[in-house]
Amino acid sequence: MNPYDYIDAHRQNFLEELKALLRIPSISTLSEHAGDVRRAAEWLQAHFEQIGMTRVQLYEKEGCHPIVYAEWLGAGDAPTILVYGHYDVQPADDPDNMWRTDPFEPVERDGNLYARGATDDKGQAFTQIKAVQSLLAAGALPVNIKFVIEGEEESGSKFVHGFVEDNAEMLKADAVVVSDSSILALDQPSIVYGLRGMVSLEIEVWGPAHDLHSGMYGGIVHNPAQALAGILAALHDGTGRVAVPGFYDRVAELDAAERAELAKTPFTLERLENETGITNPWGEPGYTLQERLGIRPTLEINGLVSGWTGEGGKTVLPAKALVKISCRLVLDQDPHEIEDLIRAYVENIAPDTVTVEVRGIHHANPVVINRDSPYMQAAIRAYEFGYGVSPVFMREGGSIPVVETFQRVLGIPVVLLGFGLPDDNLHAPNEKFALECFHRGMRTAIKFYEEAGKL
Amino acid sequence: MNPYDYIDAHRQNFLEELKALLRIPSISTLSEHAGDVRRAAEWLQAHFEQIGMTRVQLYEKEGCHPIVYAEWLGAGDAPTILVYGHYDVQPADDPDNMWRTDPFEPVERDGNLYARGATDDKGQAFTQIKAVQSLLAAGALPVNIKFVIEGEEESGSKFVHGFVEDNAEMLKADAVVVSDSSILALDQPSIVYGLRGMVSLEIEVWGPAHDLHSGMYGGIVHNPAQALAGILAALHDGTGRVAVPGFYDRVAELDAAERAELAKTPFTLERLENETGITNPWGEPGYTLQERLGIRPTLEINGLVSGWTGEGGKTVLPAKALVKISCRLVLDQDPHEIEDLIRAYVENIAPDTVTVEVRGIHHANPVVINRDSPYMQAAIRAYEFGYGVSPVFMREGGSIPVVETFQRVLGIPVVLLGFGLPDDNLHAPNEKFALECFHRGMRTAIKFYEEAGKL
Repeated sequence: MNPYDYIDAHRQNFLEELKALLRIPSISTLSEHAGDVRRAAEWLQAHFEQIGMTRVQLYEKEGCHPIVYAEWLGAGDAPTILVYGHYDVQPADDPDNMWRTDPFEPVERDGNLYARGATDDKGQAFTQIKAVQSLLAAGALPVNIKFVIEGEEESGSKFVHGFVEDNAEMLKADAVVVSDSSILALDQPSIVYGLRGMVSLEIEVWGPAHDLHSGMYGGIVHNPAQALAGILAALHDGTGRVAVPGFYDRVAELDAAERAELAKTPFTLERLENETGITNPWGEPGYTLQERLGIRPTLEINGLVSGWTGEGGKTVLPAKALVKISCRLVLDQDPHEIEDLIRAYVENIAPDTVTVEVRGIHHANPVVINRDSPYMQAAIRAYEFGYGVSPVFMREGGSIPVVETFQRVLGIPVVLLGFGLPDDNLHAPNEKFALECFHRGMRTAIKFYEEAGKL
Repeated sequence: MNPYDYIDAHRQNFLEELKALLRIPSISTLSEHAGDVRRAAEWLQAHFEQIGMTRVQLYEKEGCHPIVYAEWLGAGDAPTILVYGHYDVQPADDPDNMWRTDPFEPVERDGNLYARGATDDKGQAFTQIKAVQSLLAAGALPVNIKFVIEGEEESGSKFVHGFVEDNAEMLKADAVVVSDSSILALDQPSIVYGLRGMVSLEIEVWGPAHDLHSGMYGGIVHNPAQALAGILAALHDGTGRVAVPGFYDRVAELDAAERAELAKTPFTLERLENETGITNPWGEPGYTLQERLGIRPTLEINGLVSGWTGEGGKTVLPAKALVKISCRLVLDQDPHEIEDLIRAYVENIAPDTVTVEVRGIHHANPVVINRDSPYMQAAIRAYEFGYGVSPVFMREGGSIPVVETFQRVLGIPVVLLGFGLPDDNLHAPNEKFALECFHRGMRTAIKFYEEAGKL
């Protein structure tokens, strides 16, 4: 049986396996789920052994979640492909009951599989695993394969960078493939060649030693929530530009040719409304929506909390206020330098009636991928086979921190072979993976390995 | 046995009874505690019957917490005193483990009784109940007594205003006494004659239909937390003055004589630091700390929440952001008018890239009490007896919404016979009531009824 027939014959079985993986709430950012994260790693470990991978092993580090490693080196002198993915997921807190079904009980509905992690990244990583399994079962895997599936992509990838540096020899390969991104549409595949970097921060403002009665102290003690609002308001100017001095200093301006290329795949207002309900966009003037997402840096508030947030009222003057912020960065911004710029600015504008601390949390460098590598050409042919249409090149707004590490440490080309869709609701309620994306993804991945085997 | 000996003889017994009441977590603002609120009401009902009050009854209204009514009309033509208090308490959420002991397991430590509600207002209301019990037991109660103990003071007093209006005949009295405030210090009693009013509001800002991936939409969709920060920053000017147009228009300026009177009891920087840890005060220029608290209005953020507030990070662009605000108001501000001014201002400054709603929650009129009533003179003599020092007059920053209703509907003088201390941590962690305050409070209340009996 050839590998394409194999995936058709095992369609239902593959789906049930994916559901089993999705049922494990491997939320890496919440310490209460550390046991679940480990359970997902062990599930993958057993699965890799079952499908015939060799040297399957969990790599561990104190205070970190395990990395699942598996390899198959039966292709001799043929190229070696390192496949990266992550088995951890975003939280699925749901204060407003936005999830239509339990995020950790996968449900098929309207041709989609709904669950936290369905597309990001369990579903896409699993698509790769099933492609490799099908080639193995068909006795037709033409390349050597090394899987690195980490468990901390959604919480800062603390472990994987050092793991890659410490195990560069073991991870030696000819190219890295990552399936953790989206294509434009089912009838228009696309290849992401630029990923933004990231720095995430917390800013905490302290006022009084403890919460105070707002009637007994309000008006004489500076309210830290009020002070924080002043700081946050000053992070952007009135137009949507980030107001932190120096923030844009290292941002490379794109030339007209690349802007013209990006303009071929505009982010339309119709798409914005369909995906977000927003009819009135916002952001940095002078750039299209597509450019703001792909080639311009941003500063976003991810979370904000102070004082009484429960039901009803509590007339309290809070002791402190906290904001979680993340910046998406582009070439040639440096995440540590941006952290320092924000800290200096915040400390400068903070009133002396409160105490302010800026804490850097996660850092990831921005990356641009060479579009001319032979493995990129193999990916183009794979998409043409899987979707019947040539892919376009795109820059994406998201960040996959380890991509830059692979490029830098291993010195090999990276291919982002994404299978998600823009409306997959990743990081949001009702995350999904289209069954058609799962199927076409497997076919495209198989084709990619067949093409890579010829290089 | 005279009533003063009676309280000494029953000191330990009274304390155990108060602890039993404090153990009931009657948090009126949280619907999950509705059963506890009722339990506290029923505890008081049984207690009033036990100490010999007559016509003890719970008054109920759909969706509201019960009012406990009790009376003793055995003093014939002597004056009738209506005693108000509340048995509900503030929440005791404790995310930072600031409470040294369980807020609902009262603990004696260093001469204080620690528990949520210890001073506000279970402890102070109970002081009144024990004073009346001691006079009854001694056969020496020289006035008629009517108790109204409500269960919604910390959540907007929805029921009590209509209750007073509907039962004005039953509540007919010569004066109202309220023990729900503080004195300056154990060696300097004080009588509050001005209470600020209040309007509390929620402002909600909506952005996208659901939380979004900050990398995929950040920079093109206005972040509602960012938009809210801009609105909040614009609620005050740089000096600490409220920037809402019209906010101060109806604020009566005090004459030099009253400002001089207030200046006799300054709120010192030393006191501020002792009670709050704050060394650098804040607020409206041109007014002393004491004036900012007593005679000037304020606008405070009580709570703020948006997006991911849990452990670690979540790179989300939140769908919405919420703030809880309360304003303390002074004569002649109207809470509904202030709500309208804030709504108009917020709607005016809100960017058109988000949707904003301003919701009014609670409203209470500010009040100033006549210092010359014969019952106020009785209170002065009572404090002189209880503390050995003449009380000074003060305006307080807090609000007791029903006081204005009593004055307006019943047309009788009000006396705020407070027994708390400024460092009682009301509405904050480690709320306490000094045992000495409990004891002196009972003696002062007994003396007040003896003096009132002569009028």
